[in-house]
Formats: sequence, structure tokens, C-alpha cells
Amino acid sequence: MSLIDQALPYVRAISPYLPGKPITELAREMGIPVDKIVKLASNENPLGMSPKAKAALAKAVDSLERYPDDFDLKKALANHTGLGTERIVLGNGSNDVLDLVARVFLAPGRSAVFAQHAFAVYPLATLSTGAELIVVPAKDFGHDLDAMRAAIRPDTRIVWVANPNNPTGTFLPYPQLKAFLQAVPDDVIVVLDEAYNEYLPPAERVDTVAWLAEFPNLVITRSFSKIYGLAGLRIGYALASAEIADLMNRVRQPFNCNNLALAAAVAALDDHEFVAQSYVLNRNGMEMIIAGLKRLGLSHIPAHGNFVTFKVMDAAGVNQRLLKQGVIVRPIGGYGMPDWLRVTIGTEAENLRFLEALEKAL
Amino acid sequence: MSLIDQALPYVRAISPYLPGKPITELAREMGIPVDKIVKLASNENPLGMSPKAKAALAKAVDSLERYPDDFDLKKALANHTGLGTERIVLGNGSNDVLDLVARVFLAPGRSAVFAQHAFAVYPLATLSTGAELIVVPAKDFGHDLDAMRAAIRPDTRIVWVANPNNPTGTFLPYPQLKAFLQAVPDDVIVVLDEAYNEYLPPAERVDTVAWLAEFPNLVITRSFSKIYGLAGLRIGYALASAEIADLMNRVRQPFNCNNLALAAAVAALDDHEFVAQSYVLNRNGMEMIIAGLKRLGLSHIPAHGNFVTFKVMDAAGVNQRLLKQGVIVRPIGGYGMPDWLRVTIGTEAENLRFLEALEKAL
Repeated sequence: MSLIDQALPYVRAISPYLPGKPITELAREMGIPVDKIVKLASNENPLGMSPKAKAALAKAVDSLERYPDDFDLKKALANHTGLGTERIVLGNGSNDVLDLVARVFLAPGRSAVFAQHAFAVYPLATLSTGAELIVVPAKDFGHDLDAMRAAIRPDTRIVWVANPNNPTGTFLPYPQLKAFLQAVPDDVIVVLDEAYNEYLPPAERVDTVAWLAEFPNLVITRSFSKIYGLAGLRIGYALASAEIADLMNRVRQPFNCNNLALAAAVAALDDHEFVAQSYVLNRNGMEMIIAGLKRLGLSHIPAHGNFVTFKVMDAAGVNQRLLKQGVIVRPIGGYGMPDWLRVTIGTEAENLRFLEALEKAL
Repeated sequence: MSLIDQALPYVRAISPYLPGKPITELAREMGIPVDKIVKLASNENPLGMSPKAKAALAKAVDSLERYPDDFDLKKALANHTGLGTERIVLGNGSNDVLDLVARVFLAPGRSAVFAQHAFAVYPLATLSTGAELIVVPAKDFGHDLDAMRAAIRPDTRIVWVANPNNPTGTFLPYPQLKAFLQAVPDDVIVVLDEAYNEYLPPAERVDTVAWLAEFPNLVITRSFSKIYGLAGLRIGYALASAEIADLMNRVRQPFNCNNLALAAAVAALDDHEFVAQSYVLNRNGMEMIIAGLKRLGLSHIPAHGNFVTFKVMDAAGVNQRLLKQGVIVRPIGGYGMPDWLRVTIGTEAENLRFLEALEKAL
């Protein structure tokens, strides 16, 4: 057997993740100046990051030769959630905590349930452990919770649920979600990914943290990469029972979160004004983009995050013609949706640029 | 079976990593002001980070809402090493790339060979995959390469080698190391961890990157956390064959390295003056600390990194009495060396502070 044949067969079978095209890559490829490019491809915050976070960064820059210390962020999240620090697991982005749950509960001979068109990291995290991925067909592009419940087998250890879901933007009403948690066997983990949670109207939002008391098999994951604008710093977290958090910490790399992300996240969590401003910008931008799509006669999936997923004839061609105009959106053929594109809500000017470019590209 | 019983048995058996005590933790525990504390516990660079890296950071702070883009650092490392970018794997610290190699090649039913007293992340990375850890007794506190070769079994997929080793500071002469590579079966990966490589005298250093052509089973890992002073930012890398790098990238989290670490590392790699200055400070500090230990009648292990490991009667008590004086060093009982302490080389003033405090603590 050759060296490479000795690699685990399930690792060899993984298809790498396809990220949104970076601005600099488009600039290199098409010779478009960086400042003429609009990137609406990765559900980032068009307002950048919280000014409080930026100020915290500037202060934290002085001791970067030191290994990270996560004490302050854990304390801040404990205050924010009302949970003890022993129930909080910090991640290098929420991708990291998703991976940690998988590594605690999945292995060859076990399985995880996943909805068609759900976030690509769930299959990656599942398949990298050698577990089997059970894919449940979507309903109206969202999770079919009844079918997901029915798909759970005796060897199933994790069910992945995103609310809202990326890349489709669909939303599961809380009563449905709670009924699902009640129906799932006690010894199966439900990972509830709330990366886009803060974009839901406050009146519609339910505090799922309170559910943790009732469902010890619930793991909630959240991100600072979306409304908090810290995607480039990599920071996210999981909330779970103390026992699950302890197990996740055993497979966690000791210094998985960097010092600047830790410092910025503490400040960002406290900047309610910035979050509110980002929320309003997103709501208004969402209306503007949906109105524009309708004007162009395009259909879209009802959206609940900071992006809209819409259908076009010849999505690949439209995407190319958008790129040529310096506008980066996200083709989602990799999600089994080759006729759809996903656009992130930007600033008013960016949204306008996108709609004008789209009109030309059609 | 309860939920927690469903966690993988080998994950439940892992003992978490014990990091060096952070300065703020000692400050909280003993009420010592932060600026009165000297931390020589985690092999960090007492000069902080390269001024060029700091300038690069300041520039990169403006687009942190964007997901990271690793193009520039891969290109810089390709220039630095003479390898193609397809042979470079970036990590969230070199801890991350160590973990990635393990995840590609280890699983239950496989094993990895590891030297007694070698870096704690090798057992963590091994055990978290469910593979068996074969521990080979140390020779003079360093790796016994002949015994490690003999310990390789048909199911062994990785041999972990640190040069210099942490926490003992021992060094394997290059001819010995090369003979070991020649003796190891072709289908067993040798991970050569060179985190402390830049502290070796340039005249003694051999460019192990050239060995990659001869040994396709060699994976070299390096860190920006030591001489480059970026521990708090988390950035490291692995050099390997294109095939192994490709497999590691399949289990790598898509955005595992943050934007500031990427930007700072590009600049740090180019700041030869800072690296030279850090090297000289370390050499002088090493002489000063070794002379001081000898004066106090203490024995130490010949040191080749940026730290010295020395023996004391009642190491736990001495450590406590150092902490009370605001001096943090590293007890290494967890490494099977309960009578030893490890001290990082600091600035001249820090080294003096340590030696004075040690004299009182004895």
C-alpha cells in the first residue's frame, strides 16, 4: 500500500469547501481595481465591525506575542446568555465548534442527519469523522423537520439544524422547532446553528438559550462573523450542557481563538447600537433587493438572514457577467441549486450597484 | 445509554491541555499588579512582535468583516521555502496542522509513535482520533530515535518528532535525523515539528525543506508563535508533498487562519532584522540564565530552544514561591517530570527578576 493509500478513505473522499471569491482574486483575474469591486458573496456585514470592537483591537495589539487568554470573553458570554462559563465553548469561528461537536460524537459506524441545501460545513464536519451523512430532502428549500425526525436511525448521533438556514435563508418557526426537539430521542444531539439569529426581527425571536434547561441534548452555535462583523478575526461559540461543553473542550485546540478576536468579541457584544444599526441596514437593504428582483421578474426564496437567494436562467453565465462588472455574488451549484444565486445584503450603494449589474447581466 | 455515554470513548478519556498560567490569572489570584508580573512560562518572544508585522496589522484592521484570504501568505511562504503553494498548509497555529495530519492518517485501529517528554499536542492529536499512542522512553530527556524506529508497528501511521523538543529543549543532530528518515518505512508519516528551529545557531541549522524531495513521507511543521512573536494571533504551517497537503486541506476548516495573522505573518517573515535581534537576545539570555542556575547549584538539560528546563527539590513548592513573587514559569509534572521547571528566556531584566526570585524561592 502506498503512503497516500494509507490516508483514511473517508478523508480522501471529501470535496473541499468552495469559498466566496475574494475581492483580490477577482482583481487579479480580471484586472478590475479593488475599490471598484463589490463583494456580496459571503454574508459579511457591509458596515464592517463595531467601532467599540475596533477600539478594543487597537488596545489588544500590544501583547500579541502572548498565547491567548479566553477568560474575559467567556465571562462576557456568560453575562450575555445567563449561563455559567462551564457551558460555553469558544471556537475559531462557529465552524470550529461545529467541528468539535462532530469529533465528540461521530465516527465510522455512526451517522448524522442533515437537510438538503443546508450549510456546507455540516457535511464536511460529518464526513471528516468517517460517519455517514443522511441527507433529507428539503421542503420549500428549508428543513423538513418531520422527515428529519423520521430519518434518525439507531446509529444517528447528531442532527444538524440551521435557523435561519444558509444558503437558502429559510426560517423554522419556533413552535415547530420545539416540537422537533421534543420528538428527537434523548441520546441524539441536536445542533442548532443560529449564525444569522440576530437578523430576525426582535419581536419574532425566541430565546432558545432557555431551551437548554429542557433539552440536555441541544447544542446552540453562534457566530461573530455575521451581524458583529468579525468574520476575518474568526470567533464563534457553542452553548451546551456542562458535560457536552467539557467533552468539546477535550478535542478543542488549547489556543483555538486568537487574542484579537477575543478582545474584539467582548467589545462587539456590548455595542448594541452597532448591532441595531446593522439590523436596520439589513432590513432596508433586503426590501430594496427584493423589490429590485421582482422588478426584474426574478423569483426568490423568502429570506430571513442577511442575504437573498434568487433564481435566474443560466446562473453560471449571469454570475460571469456580474464578475466582469466587478460584482461578486455566490453561485450555489455546490448546494444542489445550479439555477440559483445568493446575494448578500450590502450598503444601499452596493445593493444598487448589484441591481444595475444584474439587469445588464440578464 | 445516556447522551454522554454516546460520546466517543477515546474523547472521554482525553485529559485537557494545561496551558501556562496567564498573567491576568495570577493577578486575579494573588492581587499582584499586572505590570509587576513576569511571565516566562510559554516560550513566547520577550521582544513582542516584529515592528513590520505591527505595521501590517494596523493596515489589515480595516477589512475584518471579510472572511480571510490566504493567498498572500501562501505566496510569501512559497518564496521563503522554494516550494509550490500546493505543498503548503496553513494552520491556526502549528497546533492546527499537527491536528490535521492526525485526522488524515489516524483512527481507531491505527497507532502513532511518540517520545516520552515530547510536546503535549502530539498525544492530544493522536488520542482525539481514537488511535493508539505508543510512548517510547526518552534517552537523556530527548528522543531515542533507534527505539522509536523499533517501536513502529504495521498499524503505525505517524511518528511525531520535535527538533528541538519542548519542554526539554533537546536537539537531534541532523545526520541522526536523516538516518532515521531513511530507516522509517515509506508508508509511515514522519512529522518533524520545527517550532523552535529559528533559535538554532545558523551554522548548525540544516535546511530540512530540501529533504522533502527525498522523503515523500516527511511533513515539516513550523510556527509563527516563537521567534516571530505572533503566538496570540495563531498562525503556523506545514510543508509536505502536494498529495499530503491536499488531504490535510480536506479536513482543514475553510477559514482556519484569521486575516490579521495572515497579514502579520507575511510581514514578520520579511523582517530579518527582528528575527536576528530576537535570536541574539535569546542566546545572551540563555547564557545568563544557565550561569545563574549553575551559581545556584541547579542542574539543567542542555537547551536548544528559547527556554531552559532545570531540576529543583520540591518543584511544586518552588513554583508556588515564584508565583507569589509575580514570576510565572512552567511546572512540567504533566510531562512526567515533576521535579523540573521550564523557564522561557526573557529580556535581560526579566531573566534577572527570575534568577533573584528563584534564589529566594529555593
